[in-house]
Parts: sequence; structure tokens; C-alpha cells
Amino acid sequence: MQRVAFQGELGSYSQDAARRFFQNGVEALPLSTFNAVFGAVETGRAEYGIIPVENSLVGSIHQNYDLLLKHDLKVAGEQNLRIIHALIAPAETSLAELERVYSHPMALEQCRQFLESHPQLQPVATYDTAGSVKLIKEEGQQQSSAIASRYAAKLYGMKVVADAIQDEPENYTRFLILSRQEAKETDDCKTSVVFVLKNLPGALFKALSVFALRDLDLTKIESRPFRQRTWQYYFYLDFIGHVRDEAPGNAITHLREITTYLKILGSYPICRAHLEQE
Amino acid sequence: MQRVAFQGELGSYSQDAARRFFQNGVEALPLSTFNAVFGAVETGRAEYGIIPVENSLVGSIHQNYDLLLKHDLKVAGEQNLRIIHALIAPAETSLAELERVYSHPMALEQCRQFLESHPQLQPVATYDTAGSVKLIKEEGQQQSSAIASRYAAKLYGMKVVADAIQDEPENYTRFLILSRQEAKETDDCKTSVVFVLKNLPGALFKALSVFALRDLDLTKIESRPFRQRTWQYYFYLDFIGHVRDEAPGNAITHLREITTYLKILGSYPICRAHLEQE
Repeated sequence: MQRVAFQGELGSYSQDAARRFFQNGVEALPLSTFNAVFGAVETGRAEYGIIPVENSLVGSIHQNYDLLLKHDLKVAGEQNLRIIHALIAPAETSLAELERVYSHPMALEQCRQFLESHPQLQPVATYDTAGSVKLIKEEGQQQSSAIASRYAAKLYGMKVVADAIQDEPENYTRFLILSRQEAKETDDCKTSVVFVLKNLPGALFKALSVFALRDLDLTKIESRPFRQRTWQYYFYLDFIGHVRDEAPGNAITHLREITTYLKILGSYPICRAHLEQE
Repeated sequence: MQRVAFQGELGSYSQDAARRFFQNGVEALPLSTFNAVFGAVETGRAEYGIIPVENSLVGSIHQNYDLLLKHDLKVAGEQNLRIIHALIAPAETSLAELERVYSHPMALEQCRQFLESHPQLQPVATYDTAGSVKLIKEEGQQQSSAIASRYAAKLYGMKVVADAIQDEPENYTRFLILSRQEAKETDDCKTSVVFVLKNLPGALFKALSVFALRDLDLTKIESRPFRQRTWQYYFYLDFIGHVRDEAPGNAITHLREITTYLKILGSYPICRAHLEQE
């Protein structure tokens, strides 16, 4: 069976996204850092990796874009996942008994209103949502809870004490699938690139022209300042099409003329679904 | 004296950015939420507000862009601030004695390597960096520390036990100044707009054309999906120039032709400095 590496413990949102992408047909390899995920795929310890790159509330996860630039892997797919946070505790516990709640800082932040209305719950930051469920299972204390996915509750045999406790109901994360190999070409592909523009007047406009002049639709554009003092930017750009097709290939050749740096992260099938959590 | 509202306790990074912007000439009004900051400026309880909108590591703070769209205030300035996190404790304490560290989830996340190499420090999530310093001062326990700015340590008379403990040395936050009034026009202005494009082929390209055709430079562009299922986007865009000048004014008129929604957040003097913390 093929193996997919992800950051976090078993039951993480990344694993949930992976089992949707691969439809359960993979073995899970939980690792402690995103860097380790890239390493596992590079060395062949895992066939695939999965990393979050964008969330509808907090935007792009620059750390993982940095790793995409540093490592030489292909993006072989994408998966969107709706994030629904649950308050999870041992089966015998009720909400009133709880005194502390463990979770990743981002999940704590996204459940701020719930936590403010339950001030008896002391939030404790950990490195992982699912890992927090594992932690309270191991601790075996009635006063401890965790914020994580329902999937994690199920996996560790714990109880969902309060469901969908996040402030914003519409909370989606986009994950990318990493591989040493390119994805198979399909009719409905998207290409992700990162580039740095030459210091020319209207450079960004020229960069977008290479797509517009060929009727290629963009699905993401973002400028990210990387040297504050000199106002240099990375641009993250996704467009519809496969680099081996004629128009996209010509667009990339054209783009090279006006960039000092250009990396094609990959061409891969578009995820059209926004699956709910089970 | 004029009053400036910000989220967090006295000594927050926002207040630090405010005192640089106003050069100490304002009274601080600490509030518990960003929404309250907008409210204080709207009602006249404060002349100004200051909010973070973008960080070089985590990107745009969508929550505050949402509030900018909801409220009818002007952006009257910007301030960049280098973020340097310090580990702060009571004056008599040494690092070895500490057992827990309070801070905002984002600050805990940004000091991950430090916290991993000091596993005896249990990270506890709070709503505020400076508020955590206030908390440990009030607690008066030798085992408690906080992650916040040096400025907060100074303000609360506490000791910096370890300085610059963030993983990434280059960490900048961009703040916007809120006001009921527009900023005075200067020669070196920037304009921030948010818009939603009509569903037209090449719409984004057309939107950028209105600036490029008038030689107006962009300093930020970002697409933010806001309805995942229908692929609609908000675009955040900053360009050099003042809306009351001819070319920028024409560009905005032109932009209205191809947008279903357009809000001018404000024209304001560009912050050219990236000030270090003291």
C-alpha cells in the first residue's frame, strides 16, 4: 500500500484531507514537522505528502510555500476540506466538569467566542489538534479536553462534547499533494507557479498579460513581500491549464522573460469538491 | 490629547506601532477586541484606531479586512513594525525556574523552536501578548513567564529573560491607522481598495489594466476566496497615488465599470520606515 506523510498525529485535518483525496487507499505516516513531510517524500519513505497551503480565514500558509521553494517535489493534486472544530473529552465527562482545553494555537484562535463564553476552560497551546486528543486520552483526566476534528474523536474513541464550535462556520483549508512524480495529465488541470519579477515598470501587469493574452484563467494571485526594505515580492499564482499544453507552455516561456525567478510547482487535477467533514 | 484605540492591553505591539506613528503624542485606549477598536473610533471615544492587517510570516489578517468592509472609517495612515518577541518574567526569576509561558497563540507559534528546546515551559494560550505580561505581574509567581515585546516588559517593570526568541528574525507587521477623517494629502501617498470583479473573461487582467495603463504602481495584490463553492473573490489592492489626483481618480472610475463591489479604504502617506523595536 502507498504511504502518505503529513504533519500531526493520527486524526489530523491533514490526514482527513488525505483519506478523501486517496479515498482511504493509503497508509498514514504522521510526522512532527512540515519539513519532515517533505523529507519523507524526497527519500522515498512515503510516496506522497500532504500539506495545508491556504485557509479561507487566515490566508496562505507562507511557511509551506517556503518549503515548496526549497524542496524539489511536484504538486500532484489538491484537496479542499471544510474545517469543523469539535470540543472532545473522555466519554464519561460533561462540559461543566472541564477545566482545560488543549489544541493548536490556530484552532484555539478560531474558537475564540466559544472559549470566551466558557471562561472556566483554560486554553493550553499544543503543536497539534489530533495530538491534543491523544494527549487527553493518555492523561485520562476528566478535567481535560481538546479541540480537534470529529474524525480525531472517533479515531481515539473519545466523545464530542460540543460540535462546530468555531467562530466562523465557513472555514475551508486547501491542501496540496506532494510527490516525486508529476500527476497524470487530465482535461481539468490547474498549474501553480511562484515567481519574482524583474524590476521593470508595470512588471506585474506584464506578468498577468502572458495569461490574459492566451485566455488562461487565474484562480489565485498573491503578492508576498520577502525583503521589506527593498520591496521585493514573491508572487503566488495558480491558473487553469497544464504546462504541457500549448497555451500554458507558451505563457510560461513568456513569463520567464520578465522574471528573475520562476518555479513551476506542478500541474494537477482541480479539486471541484468542498467536502464536509463526516 | 488625542486618543488612539487598539486591541490588547497596554504594551501591545499595536500600541508600540501607534506611539511610533504618532511619536508619543497620543493617549492610549486599550480595548479587548478589534471590533471594539472600530466602534471607539466611530463613536468618537477615540480619534484614531490602529489595527494590524498584514504580517510578513502569516500574510493578511482577513478578520481586520472584514471589519474594514463592515465599518465606515477611513484608513489615514500605515505603520510598519518589526516584531521581536521576548521571554519576560519577574525580575528575580531565572529561565531555569520557569514552568509556564503565557502568550497569544500567534506569538507562541512564532517561538516554536525556542519552546521546543525548553520543554519544561508549558505554553498557555491567552488573548494578548502584553496582557500576558500584566497577568504574570498580577499573579506574582516565580514560575510564570510571558512572550511579548520588550516594550511591554519595560512598561510593567518586568525582566527580559531571553530576547528575540522568535524562529524567524525577519518578522514585520503592517498596521493601518483608522480615522473618521481622511488623511491630509501629501506627495507620497498610497491608496488601498477592496473589490469584487464582475464575472467577465479576463476580469482580473482588466482590473489591473486600469492601473497599468495609467502607470500606477501596485504595492499589494491578493485574491481571497469568500464563497468557496462559486469561486468568488475579494481582491485587496494597494497602489501608489491619491484618489483625488487625476490618474488614480480615473483609474477608480474605470475600475467601477468592471466590479460589482468596490470600496476605497483610504489614501494615506506611505510608511517608508521599518523601525526596529527599541
